[in-house]
Amino acid sequence: PFDDSTIRHLFKQIFQASLQLQEEEKMHLLVSRKRRAEDTVVEVKGVRIGNGHPIVVAGPCSVETREQMETVGQGLRAQGIVVMRGGAYKPRTSPYDFQGLGREGLVMLRETADKYGMVAVSEIVNPADIEMATQYVDIIQIGARNMQNFELLKAAGSVRTPVLLKRGLSATIEELLFAAEYIMSRGNDQIILCERGIRTYEKATRNTLDISAVPILKQESHLPVFVDISHSTGRKDIMIPVAKAALAAGADGIMVEVHPEPSVALSDAKQQINLEQFGQLMDALREAGYLPPVAERVATR
Amino acid sequence: PFDDSTIRHLFKQIFQASLQLQEEEKMHLLVSRKRRAEDTVVEVKGVRIGNGHPIVVAGPCSVETREQMETVGQGLRAQGIVVMRGGAYKPRTSPYDFQGLGREGLVMLRETADKYGMVAVSEIVNPADIEMATQYVDIIQIGARNMQNFELLKAAGSVRTPVLLKRGLSATIEELLFAAEYIMSRGNDQIILCERGIRTYEKATRNTLDISAVPILKQESHLPVFVDISHSTGRKDIMIPVAKAALAAGADGIMVEVHPEPSVALSDAKQQINLEQFGQLMDALREAGYLPPVAERVATR
Amino acid sequence: PFDDSTIRHLFKQIFQASLQLQEEEKMHLLVSRKRRAEDTVVEVKGVRIGNGHPIVVAGPCSVETREQMETVGQGLRAQGIVVMRGGAYKPRTSPYDFQGLGREGLVMLRETADKYGMVAVSEIVNPADIEMATQYVDIIQIGARNMQNFELLKAAGSVRTPVLLKRGLSATIEELLFAAEYIMSRGNDQIILCERGIRTYEKATRNTLDISAVPILKQESHLPVFVDISHSTGRKDIMIPVAKAALAAGADGIMVEVHPEPSVALSDAKQQINLEQFGQLMDALREAGYLPPVAERVATR
Amino acid sequence: PFDDSTIRHLFKQIFQASLQLQEEEKMHLLVSRKRRAEDTVVEVKGVRIGNGHPIVVAGPCSVETREQMETVGQGLRAQGIVVMRGGAYKPRTSPYDFQGLGREGLVMLRETADKYGMVAVSEIVNPADIEMATQYVDIIQIGARNMQNFELLKAAGSVRTPVLLKRGLSATIEELLFAAEYIMSRGNDQIILCERGIRTYEKATRNTLDISAVPILKQESHLPVFVDISHSTGRKDIMIPVAKAALAAGADGIMVEVHPEPSVALSDAKQQINLEQFGQLMDALREAGYLPPVAERVATR
Repeated sequence: PFDDSTIRHLFKQIFQASLQLQEEEKMHLLVSRKRRAEDTVVEVKGVRIGNGHPIVVAGPCSVETREQMETVGQGLRAQGIVVMRGGAYKPRTSPYDFQGLGREGLVMLRETADKYGMVAVSEIVNPADIEMATQYVDIIQIGARNMQNFELLKAAGSVRTPVLLKRGLSATIEELLFAAEYIMSRGNDQIILCERGIRTYEKATRNTLDISAVPILKQESHLPVFVDISHSTGRKDIMIPVAKAALAAGADGIMVEVHPEPSVALSDAKQQINLEQFGQLMDALREAGYLPPVAERVATR
Repeated sequence: PFDDSTIRHLFKQIFQASLQLQEEEKMHLLVSRKRRAEDTVVEVKGVRIGNGHPIVVAGPCSVETREQMETVGQGLRAQGIVVMRGGAYKPRTSPYDFQGLGREGLVMLRETADKYGMVAVSEIVNPADIEMATQYVDIIQIGARNMQNFELLKAAGSVRTPVLLKRGLSATIEELLFAAEYIMSRGNDQIILCERGIRTYEKATRNTLDISAVPILKQESHLPVFVDISHSTGRKDIMIPVAKAALAAGADGIMVEVHPEPSVALSDAKQQINLEQFGQLMDALREAGYLPPVAERVATR
Repeated sequence: PFDDSTIRHLFKQIFQASLQLQEEEKMHLLVSRKRRAEDTVVEVKGVRIGNGHPIVVAGPCSVETREQMETVGQGLRAQGIVVMRGGAYKPRTSPYDFQGLGREGLVMLRETADKYGMVAVSEIVNPADIEMATQYVDIIQIGARNMQNFELLKAAGSVRTPVLLKRGLSATIEELLFAAEYIMSRGNDQIILCERGIRTYEKATRNTLDISAVPILKQESHLPVFVDISHSTGRKDIMIPVAKAALAAGADGIMVEVHPEPSVALSDAKQQINLEQFGQLMDALREAGYLPPVAERVATR
Repeated sequence: PFDDSTIRHLFKQIFQASLQLQEEEKMHLLVSRKRRAEDTVVEVKGVRIGNGHPIVVAGPCSVETREQMETVGQGLRAQGIVVMRGGAYKPRTSPYDFQGLGREGLVMLRETADKYGMVAVSEIVNPADIEMATQYVDIIQIGARNMQNFELLKAAGSVRTPVLLKRGLSATIEELLFAAEYIMSRGNDQIILCERGIRTYEKATRNTLDISAVPILKQESHLPVFVDISHSTGRKDIMIPVAKAALAAGADGIMVEVHPEPSVALSDAKQQINLEQFGQLMDALREAGYLPPVAERVATR
């Protein structure tokens, strides 16, 4: 009774409707904004993440020595930083590269964070270490290489310490949300997502910062979204414009690697900035209005 | 006389020096900032591009009818737009898709631009048409699929009409600069570079906007840099944050596809926004301080 | 009347059907096997391509001198090669690199091919040159950078000389078929498709040879499919296994760059092999049964 | 004393030398062929992998039921298969997808393998399970998502059960070798590398099989190299040509997912082939000479 083109048109309509239905299934994820309309605010020791006031997470790629941590801690505090990062378990491409100080590194990070009144973030790489780590860190980081280490995600879901989950090197936005769902479905709903660049053919940057992922994640999920400006670019010379872009796109915070003397760092020597460069970055972000002026700093906590 | 580790150290130093030398060779490109320290400001009929005041280029993907152009032209002018785009020669994946109105489309674009006091941009795809096109358009666009159509680049280099050169679908930043060099080495130094997203595995967006390309291009070249927020994302729902990110990263302008009724557009129906959505985008950019308030608009020309 | 899960199931069925309908639309392409079940055999001066007997296309990246062409021509003929390649118009990343000898190069290629009874293939890059080129070459090559130079495709479709169409650097298989459709829809049905590697993050090879593209193209289209083993890998040291893989996957032929003295070649010095290495490649392919033994050579024409 | 071009030439020479030096450092990896010239032959219960006679590893994506395993086991044995795969711990994108039967699955796999005189391969995902797994499986598989789960690699390095290490979704060839080095540097030198496709923009296949990786890995390392033809393509319709290409490129074996009734499989339903299709694949490989004729089968063990 209908001619071909009518049928064809009809089918296309149904096709669209059907696609929408499939979208609706995704809605049901716990991490989805369809399940929770309001933004999740991760709160740890008075620091609030995801409440509209961007956070700058800074610190060395690796915890190396007490002196290093002391210098960085002091420098960060002087800039009003309230969340400090420092790696103790380092997932390195080669088994012969520095693998981190392990538990000893966590201890040093804890001491520095405590001394300067900061919250501590550090990456954990073994499911068996998650429980132990909660004694030392305030936020457990799950790194890009482990975004689909589902055993680690499950372990992180079983504790109540907030988790900073980085996007995998070639993970889709959808896969990142499913990875977060592994954590949340186990009962831990304190999760921060982190875009850190994806692997593409372009070699001018270490990875390609997928800036669109920020508004898409904010739209599809109620979780806070960070951008790691060090790993996504691997370049010190464009950190200021990239940090601005991340915050302009709606990121709830940025992560940046800061080392007292990057050239002798035991890992990521090329991309870490020193305290002076960090000061310039902070000044630029304050001046552009992304961060509050120095005087108001305390009030934002 | 030297032990192995000394030799090795020495070689690494030399290696670095050698890399630098190779870098220096690149300096000699005409498009390089090493050759010209000051920003190039492309000037056409009083519109200045690259002078620190961002430009918004808007208009339909394809020129379709006089009515369509009239509606868009009026709408754009009401928003203070001074550069209008409209495609007359459309490089389409399938030979059976709408291929554009050709010269007739250029004429319509010219008329609309003239009526509303705007500058006209349109893509040219055949080297043989470059000369003719200079009669109708103020800026010749070379599209992503033609970034390494070197014959077209050479033809564009032989006229004196400014060229808007889009980055290829999987072109490196370096290849984009070399493509611009093809134009400049023929004598045409009025070039605008345009980041429009690169092809990656991620399918949440049509392409992946390489935001880092903006500060890198600004650093390596003296040419103005635009970001096409329509093609890079292919999504209407994130245009505002993406536009902000582009301008925050230092872009000299953004390009956006605007159609009076996107759902019936003959090309790119999905990603074009209507005039109301365009108004919202402009409001958001003004409110965030990226564009001057309405009253000051004329002064920025 | 129906519960949710029934509806959902129904929609999924319809969704599948709808997808199939869209697939069927693709069927209607002239290049599709749905339109023509038998393999297209491209025939030029007695050489038959796509008839089940693989072809080896060889020759220098660029035509450089008469001596070079003479040496290569003689060497190729000694190996029973019947299709010779040689570039006269070179699409080079930098405007300062060797751009080819142009028409003079075509003349030299023609002379060599004639002297040794071979068929000549050469890349054309400007739509305006297609007509002229048919006087000199037996097969017009359209290179990767021009796969979506639709004006060039249209021009190639308007002549009756066979076309060797290379896949773009980041073109999908579907886009390659649509590009071929541009040619075929203009009336030229003598087309050879060529997989030449795609751009990915992996840098161990110049490009990533997408071997699966060979059987997919053979399945979806009736056109002959070649593999360019030089550009896809950029490495001489793996040419033999890669050539075998290409032919094992069903390719109708391979292309390889051969130069009398690769280290001084004016383009692609790294990936071209010399005549001795070419002899080893041919021996390996004969020994493995992909090519007929030397004695039977003539019979396969 | 020297002019610029001489210096430049000199530096380039030194640069090359320096690059070579860096290459030499890589030589020192235990997995490198520079450290061990002869091929490593992994031997397990009389099955020899990497001795020039290709192996076909087959079995279901997931172990589901005793009946399923019985049917597959019988079918594989009838085809002369000596290595059976079956997943018990499934790394799934969504936490709500079937996660595998765990230890119970390992038990079923063990029983089937024993009954039909086959060697058993299964993926382990938690470092804490490696020791336990050695009781049930003959070869521990480390999957693509865990290629840089360094804790898992270290655990696999501490046992003496052979390891089948799959390339990560977007891992470079170099990173795969370093991952193998994590295992070997802990004392376990029985490692099989497995190319399983990489993530690219092309969506005609689930992943892009990087066929060049096979000869490169064989050249750079002494370890056996497999190709997973199911995950790399995700398509049943091109398995035969892809399997041939893998073996023609020099692979020591292929892996393929076989399920008695793929359409009801609990995972990877789309890409698994049934026993009849598997029979066709085996016939095709025997006919083309990649596998010995049926009569000689036993002799190759």
